[in-house]
Amino acid sequence: MYSFKNDYSEGALPAIMELLNKSNFEQTNGYGEDYFCEEAKKKIKDRLQYKACDVHFLVGGTQTNLTVIASALRPYEAVIAADTGHINVHETGAIEASGHKVLTVKGTDGKVTSEAVRKVVLDHEDEHMVKPAMVYISNATEIGTMYLKEELQELYATCKELGLYLFMDGARLGSALMAQNNNIEWEDLCSLCDVFYIGGTKNGALFGEALVIVNEELKKDFRYMIKQRGGLLAKGRLLGIQFLGLFENENFEKAAKHANNMAGKLQDAFIQKKIPLFISTTTNQIFPILTNIQMDILSKKYAFQIWEKLDNEHTAVRFVTSWATKEEAVEECIQDILRLEA
Amino acid sequence: MYSFKNDYSEGALPAIMELLNKSNFEQTNGYGEDYFCEEAKKKIKDRLQYKACDVHFLVGGTQTNLTVIASALRPYEAVIAADTGHINVHETGAIEASGHKVLTVKGTDGKVTSEAVRKVVLDHEDEHMVKPAMVYISNATEIGTMYLKEELQELYATCKELGLYLFMDGARLGSALMAQNNNIEWEDLCSLCDVFYIGGTKNGALFGEALVIVNEELKKDFRYMIKQRGGLLAKGRLLGIQFLGLFENENFEKAAKHANNMAGKLQDAFIQKKIPLFISTTTNQIFPILTNIQMDILSKKYAFQIWEKLDNEHTAVRFVTSWATKEEAVEECIQDILRLEA
Amino acid sequence: MYSFKNDYSEGALPAIMELLNKSNFEQTNGYGEDYFCEEAKKKIKDRLQYKACDVHFLVGGTQTNLTVIASALRPYEAVIAADTGHINVHETGAIEASGHKVLTVKGTDGKVTSEAVRKVVLDHEDEHMVKPAMVYISNATEIGTMYLKEELQELYATCKELGLYLFMDGARLGSALMAQNNNIEWEDLCSLCDVFYIGGTKNGALFGEALVIVNEELKKDFRYMIKQRGGLLAKGRLLGIQFLGLFENENFEKAAKHANNMAGKLQDAFIQKKIPLFISTTTNQIFPILTNIQMDILSKKYAFQIWEKLDNEHTAVRFVTSWATKEEAVEECIQDILRLEA
Amino acid sequence: MYSFKNDYSEGALPAIMELLNKSNFEQTNGYGEDYFCEEAKKKIKDRLQYKACDVHFLVGGTQTNLTVIASALRPYEAVIAADTGHINVHETGAIEASGHKVLTVKGTDGKVTSEAVRKVVLDHEDEHMVKPAMVYISNATEIGTMYLKEELQELYATCKELGLYLFMDGARLGSALMAQNNNIEWEDLCSLCDVFYIGGTKNGALFGEALVIVNEELKKDFRYMIKQRGGLLAKGRLLGIQFLGLFENENFEKAAKHANNMAGKLQDAFIQKKIPLFISTTTNQIFPILTNIQMDILSKKYAFQIWEKLDNEHTAVRFVTSWATKEEAVEECIQDILRLEA
Repeated sequence: MYSFKNDYSEGALPAIMELLNKSNFEQTNGYGEDYFCEEAKKKIKDRLQYKACDVHFLVGGTQTNLTVIASALRPYEAVIAADTGHINVHETGAIEASGHKVLTVKGTDGKVTSEAVRKVVLDHEDEHMVKPAMVYISNATEIGTMYLKEELQELYATCKELGLYLFMDGARLGSALMAQNNNIEWEDLCSLCDVFYIGGTKNGALFGEALVIVNEELKKDFRYMIKQRGGLLAKGRLLGIQFLGLFENENFEKAAKHANNMAGKLQDAFIQKKIPLFISTTTNQIFPILTNIQMDILSKKYAFQIWEKLDNEHTAVRFVTSWATKEEAVEECIQDILRLEA
Repeated sequence: MYSFKNDYSEGALPAIMELLNKSNFEQTNGYGEDYFCEEAKKKIKDRLQYKACDVHFLVGGTQTNLTVIASALRPYEAVIAADTGHINVHETGAIEASGHKVLTVKGTDGKVTSEAVRKVVLDHEDEHMVKPAMVYISNATEIGTMYLKEELQELYATCKELGLYLFMDGARLGSALMAQNNNIEWEDLCSLCDVFYIGGTKNGALFGEALVIVNEELKKDFRYMIKQRGGLLAKGRLLGIQFLGLFENENFEKAAKHANNMAGKLQDAFIQKKIPLFISTTTNQIFPILTNIQMDILSKKYAFQIWEKLDNEHTAVRFVTSWATKEEAVEECIQDILRLEA
Repeated sequence: MYSFKNDYSEGALPAIMELLNKSNFEQTNGYGEDYFCEEAKKKIKDRLQYKACDVHFLVGGTQTNLTVIASALRPYEAVIAADTGHINVHETGAIEASGHKVLTVKGTDGKVTSEAVRKVVLDHEDEHMVKPAMVYISNATEIGTMYLKEELQELYATCKELGLYLFMDGARLGSALMAQNNNIEWEDLCSLCDVFYIGGTKNGALFGEALVIVNEELKKDFRYMIKQRGGLLAKGRLLGIQFLGLFENENFEKAAKHANNMAGKLQDAFIQKKIPLFISTTTNQIFPILTNIQMDILSKKYAFQIWEKLDNEHTAVRFVTSWATKEEAVEECIQDILRLEA
Repeated sequence: MYSFKNDYSEGALPAIMELLNKSNFEQTNGYGEDYFCEEAKKKIKDRLQYKACDVHFLVGGTQTNLTVIASALRPYEAVIAADTGHINVHETGAIEASGHKVLTVKGTDGKVTSEAVRKVVLDHEDEHMVKPAMVYISNATEIGTMYLKEELQELYATCKELGLYLFMDGARLGSALMAQNNNIEWEDLCSLCDVFYIGGTKNGALFGEALVIVNEELKKDFRYMIKQRGGLLAKGRLLGIQFLGLFENENFEKAAKHANNMAGKLQDAFIQKKIPLFISTTTNQIFPILTNIQMDILSKKYAFQIWEKLDNEHTAVRFVTSWATKEEAVEECIQDILRLEA
């Protein structure tokens, strides 16, 4: 059984394991106040070509989302997200647990549009309703799509006009940036939103997200927030070491490219076989629509996720690839796809 | 410069690193639903000789504390802790951020007594005041002391009588259990409190705390709480693997014993030198009271923490040892202590 | 200008003012522990023919909603409401501020159906998502409709089957119970939900909601919750006095009947004039759809609320009547309606 | 039995009841957006001789405290209060329920000193601890003492120096301002703190506190906060009407003076009888220390509160007077005090 269930099924890039092993007995200060974290932050700022941002390392995505949002909003303020957004559906109410409403808009291919944001803001006009104050997006999105540069520019302009922060969840940012049709460069990122993160967990690290705060207003006392929400790792250097590993030798980019390539190959096989797609993507998640029989056959050898039952006969499923996905496994799977009955 | 600042200055036990390396490319389910976690839980239950408990792995101590307390208490309920308690002083109000008051009692050698608990409960008599519902203790305590079995038995009996849960923060449980004068065995633990954790971070793991829930009332839906508070690690197996490493070959016990031995040697040197102690301990934290001159001399070669300035001439400082503390460094430090002027 | 904007434009029923005046210099205990509150609770239990419930008096609706929900739910649990529900739209995120997600279902005439509830529960299947634990409904609803007895019975049966509490916001319960087509009696109420309240503010009191807790599980320590959320009135007797006034001489019923009659007359006039209704109701809120010209004319003499702009020419508006609505004003308004151009 | 238990045992000043009766059938907008509230705000600003403040009316003290503090602080910030402070002891953890720690200092005669505040701030130095951001005081204090102008000036200067807001709970502000030794004038108040309130509930209103926000930073969107915390009264005019009543004809001042006089007379009797005082006050609360026998005798005719059992023989008790306290009752009580055995 080979798993295409997610991009966190294995450990870490060998380069990262090597650095962890090598540094194991070095003594450092705790809580991220160490040489490795400092170096990793420098490397990230260099890649972004933006010195004036703050970089913080957190362990996971939900933790990062809830800490950023709880830090940015006043108690009566709300965050806007796509109805499919991770914070809306898959974080067990973490945002609400920090006191804030998630206002949802119908996603367009999983993406939030300026128009939808504008409507929400117009609908919230007085003190009997929450006040929208932030827009949360994911890039890549939860359904594998990604934002083009011009889309982000427009959305961010709208946010600024309406007095909203724009926060980009980058749990799969690597996959988005390395996607074929992507036109966003590292050095664009700090001009496209107020705060975002570079996901390590799903792109080759054991764990870790590098949060980049661009907007001055969001920087103040952020370490207090991390500590309060339980996100300040005692051996914080582990995060620094891993991001050092990711940002040397273009390991981060290579990892994402590999994942995208593997997914692309699988998607191509489904297309070749005329198996319809729930949505067409260029990142590391693909969504074929299988018949019950096709699903039965493939699930004997491969693990993948049931996404949505469409009717009695058809189910949208999700295949996810990663830096660790084996090319042989993909090739074998392609053969199995091509052998499926229509 | 050799650091005695804390017990999280280095990485992990070689046995743990080895397991992490070995398993790196295995595919598993995420979020702790994997073979390694299952095995590690089994091993822990075996060591405790108690099958009916629930074991959960979390990344860090503050996260564990806030999740347990938020899960156990109703909104108007409060937790009692020593004034020096970690949740009261060093978690940036994490407990209050989850909505609950921390009621403090004067610690007796850092420990909470039945008498003090009883007084707090008596003082909170009606709905204009919070309702005490849990007692939080640390073993070993924040100042390196530890509870004897009879102390815990009495405290727990009082808690049960008064309708309070007893929660034991075991960030340094290993050091407590391996201390010379300790009389608590692994198999006693589940009868001495309602919920506790076995600290990995400070005893040889890269990170990780194994939470053990004994009381049936506290078990329900606990994974929801972990997820909501951002503590559900995607690659949850990392926690299972590490606790497997800790609980094989008595690695956990050996690590703690080594730490205690190293601290004991240092403390003995201070005693030999007639340097007074802020408090006498048998765990991995010691608290000599140094003169300014002594502090100057030692701080040239060793990093340690200023604990409390006692007067213009004297300061209580803290030396912490760990599984990774080098015997040579301790020997050298002892020589330097013995060379100090009185 | 005569106002049909809402049912809280005036003070209180003369009978209530009289009781307040008469008792003004009596000395009582504070915080609702007084003779008047005791008597009022008795009267309410008598009317409900249910002794085993707990009755608490709170000042307002949002306060009652947030206190009940915060008390009933564990941190990761969520409440289901209609998308138009007061807690979802018009309480500035009060529920989320207490830590809980509001899951919305499309209302059917403003009402929550068993089917919709069932779907939400099915969609929330693991610890990555909140856990639905309560259904919130309003009767009368925010758009003036009301639940029939059989609808509530079915909904409550579904809730029990699925392990959900059913909470009925009765800010306008009087109007619902006195509506022409209503088939719910006072003595039915305690068998139709777990907790509900009898709205005073919108039915003749200066302020005040009488919360009735039927389900034993929801009763514990409720006064702690009220106090903590700022809802325990120092001169609590004011609430008891007012509910005494409401529950003597059928004042509560008469007040609601008058309001319904007045609204009915206005609605009849609109119907007679063939002005369409946004929704047809039998309670004290009506929703004609006016043309711009009609709106202009009526708004010169009457205040009412714009509900929803339907197109460039038409707007749904809301007229609300109350115990205090003057029959002469209604008659005059009817004349003005009948004089409108189509 | 005559009650000296508290200052909220009766209804409201006749002048207030009259205004409520008179206005009962007038129609106004809801939620405090009415003529009465506007007028009352004007009157209050006039009395304060300060136009640039915002005035909001809330129903009760706990509600006001929790709303102000939740609005002012970021999640990791804490409020400093005297250990005897109302928010620390008698609000069922309302502040913690909004997410914030209450840091306590030992009160000096119930008052917070600059020195104590300074120490707390110095002790909280990094992100592992909460960050003090506000000082909460009560004037008059919970034990009947009051701040002199120079004390407030010094405390406020310290707060500004340390970057802390100063918030004055004025539930008994009337009594403080009218006390014999008081040297604070109405027109001083806005220069002595950032935000404060003028208590109506305990000085002649049925309920109501007039919050005055002086500091620009604390004004933004405050009505959102009130609504979210359940404090926005539907018939908000009731608050405006009552404060109109309080601020016409010096009713507020007269009410407080009467209360203080009555308390002073009782205290004088205890002093004359050589009965010791727990603390000597000039406001409407007094604290004689009674023997068991004295307590037995007085409690047959008078209700008062047990404050603190001092030893087996002696108990500090509290007598509270109000605008409604009858002079005859006080005279009779004085005779009874003078007849007590020593």
